[in-house]
Amino acid sequence: MSRNLAVSAARIAADIDALAAITDPGRPWTRRAFSDLFLQGRAYLETQFRAAGLETHIDTAGNLIGRRAGRNAKAGTIMLGSHSDTVPDGGRFDGVAGVVVALEVARGLKEAGIELEHNLEVADFLAEEVSIFGVSCVGSRGMAGIRPDEWLGREAEGMTLAEGIEKVGGKPALQIARDDIRAFLELHIEQGPVLEGEKLDIGVVTAIAGITRVEIIVEGRADHAGTTPMDRRADALAAAAHVVLAVETLAGELAATPGHFAATTGEFEMWPNAANVVPSKVRMLLDIRSEHRDDLGEFLTGLESCLEGIARDNGVAIAAPRLVSDNPAMPMDPLVMETLDAACETTGAAHRRMASGAGHDAAFMARIARAGMIFIPCLSGRSHAPEEWAENADIALGAEVLLEAVKRLDTKLMEQ
Amino acid sequence: MSRNLAVSAARIAADIDALAAITDPGRPWTRRAFSDLFLQGRAYLETQFRAAGLETHIDTAGNLIGRRAGRNAKAGTIMLGSHSDTVPDGGRFDGVAGVVVALEVARGLKEAGIELEHNLEVADFLAEEVSIFGVSCVGSRGMAGIRPDEWLGREAEGMTLAEGIEKVGGKPALQIARDDIRAFLELHIEQGPVLEGEKLDIGVVTAIAGITRVEIIVEGRADHAGTTPMDRRADALAAAAHVVLAVETLAGELAATPGHFAATTGEFEMWPNAANVVPSKVRMLLDIRSEHRDDLGEFLTGLESCLEGIARDNGVAIAAPRLVSDNPAMPMDPLVMETLDAACETTGAAHRRMASGAGHDAAFMARIARAGMIFIPCLSGRSHAPEEWAENADIALGAEVLLEAVKRLDTKLMEQ
Repeated sequence: MSRNLAVSAARIAADIDALAAITDPGRPWTRRAFSDLFLQGRAYLETQFRAAGLETHIDTAGNLIGRRAGRNAKAGTIMLGSHSDTVPDGGRFDGVAGVVVALEVARGLKEAGIELEHNLEVADFLAEEVSIFGVSCVGSRGMAGIRPDEWLGREAEGMTLAEGIEKVGGKPALQIARDDIRAFLELHIEQGPVLEGEKLDIGVVTAIAGITRVEIIVEGRADHAGTTPMDRRADALAAAAHVVLAVETLAGELAATPGHFAATTGEFEMWPNAANVVPSKVRMLLDIRSEHRDDLGEFLTGLESCLEGIARDNGVAIAAPRLVSDNPAMPMDPLVMETLDAACETTGAAHRRMASGAGHDAAFMARIARAGMIFIPCLSGRSHAPEEWAENADIALGAEVLLEAVKRLDTKLMEQ
Repeated sequence: MSRNLAVSAARIAADIDALAAITDPGRPWTRRAFSDLFLQGRAYLETQFRAAGLETHIDTAGNLIGRRAGRNAKAGTIMLGSHSDTVPDGGRFDGVAGVVVALEVARGLKEAGIELEHNLEVADFLAEEVSIFGVSCVGSRGMAGIRPDEWLGREAEGMTLAEGIEKVGGKPALQIARDDIRAFLELHIEQGPVLEGEKLDIGVVTAIAGITRVEIIVEGRADHAGTTPMDRRADALAAAAHVVLAVETLAGELAATPGHFAATTGEFEMWPNAANVVPSKVRMLLDIRSEHRDDLGEFLTGLESCLEGIARDNGVAIAAPRLVSDNPAMPMDPLVMETLDAACETTGAAHRRMASGAGHDAAFMARIARAGMIFIPCLSGRSHAPEEWAENADIALGAEVLLEAVKRLDTKLMEQ
């Protein structure tokens, strides 16, 4: 990387290494939300935010905010950010790269002497990952005013979520949706293999795919595995095997059409699960990610038709799939996407449009602001694992794209 | 049933009802080996054995034996029997029917004033079912001299198996194979649907099928279910689904050829079993029942070939199937089978030859004696469940067949 960047790859590397060092030493790289390690990480970030000329505070939702006022008091805010919490063993880049890059953009603007019309805010969102309380995106939901009140009573490790938010400095009783944010930008590792496979620098995210969870239960009959002839069985496992393959086939067909689509049988339990008994029951939980709502409908219609045939052919009962949860896709803002594309061109980053199969804070920020995301490549698409890796040069190029996009948005948003 | 039987259907019903009443009241019908209820059941049986003119004792292996001496001291023994212990919730007929029928044959012979050349013994074998100690056929293995010594140290519910055998009156240190038993006969419910389906009274068992257990492990790759494109996955569950269907297909083909064959994927576990992660690993345990050893070989060869193709097509690793246990089939004695066929003809019982897919005490008695079994129909093939049911008339007809077979064997064996 010989480009003359406005951002410092070395500072980015130093910040990522410093945060990686703040880990449970027995299981790198672990810094879960609400833990003392998490507060140590935030203390490091706060120091760096201040050194970058940002005023810091913890907002009511528990997010760490670094802020620099803009020239135009009425212009509102451009926010950059991601999260510094991790899953257990969770990797050094997931979330962290986005926070560090946001910080570096603030430093780069300061060093270049660039003043913006808009306020600039850098955010470290609280508890993006599923935390000890079993829920995700606590901070971004709170900032968008849609963190469910009933979550506050959830208990884990001797505290409630409300007490956890207070521990980090938030005020859980005061949930107010922000209405001053004009644009939100987040950089994240792709957590998939597409950019690496296509040797691209940047993915401009078109949408955070919807996540739909569907439960399927197959009911057969428990028979003696020794005495029941093969043609007299109602084997729930054999029927469920057909279901698993139907899910894979239907999803493969939809994945080959425009727009992100994936379906996974992620949970699979069988009863009685005894060596000498023909399986009587199987429960499956499907995880379905769809960028286009039509694809989800087509999948579920096709699946129901398959299930009828499988039930008939195997002599088992399969109830209609039960919708366990359904969060539709969240499209990113067209103006922001165009700006990010243009910023890629200016910085010479090879880029493509792509949906995000994973959830991100940007999905909640999109409810209150024009939101956009860029992905950078990660090694073999690995994430949520110790071996997660992103090249520092790729992160630095992403920072350069974001800095360019901020400058462009600062102008464009004034014209809107 | 208007035949003039030498056995009493009413007495059989009374015995079965009396034993059914000796159950854990909260979960009928439960009378597990080594429990106080089990000893109550045995006390009932011992009283009935004595009333039938049998001398009773507990042998060193812990079996309850009722004995009537024959006319010819050198002729040896004809033994009838089964087991009175049950699985949890385990049914009123599995084992019990065989013990009660053996007792009724002794009563029938006594009432008819028939003296045998051979000694007659009625046996209630100890712990045929998998007991709290996790092993089966403790009493019949002991009588055959092949109960593994290392089993004696197994502990459960505050006692060792050795102490359990002592509790019921056995002498675990003195394991001696019997060598005086000339023939062993056992009646048992079929525990399958064949006789009921074909409207037959009796199945003359040709062999206790072999039981082979094989473990298959599929190793794929854990990927993010949202971000990993469908065509970039190594989904262990999808591959395992193909394995399950291959097992079903191969077994179905062999089941359609002469000789009992069945294969069941009875255990199935998946990792990480998390909704949003592509499955990385599946472990399956196959239960394979084969009357003919060649069928087992053909199945395993066919399976290995399928696994290679499945691994290749799905981008996963499947190690060669691991043999967890392998107990070959135990054929029943030809002379005994012919005698049982003839006894069916004499008593007017509609009969067929068939293998036993389940294990029985007869499989161990066959190591030290000419052994044979008859099956009687049971409702819908259900067993090891509260709804297990056999018609009393069917049990009584079975007793009649056994009584006739004993008379015939008493003569035939003297000619051998």
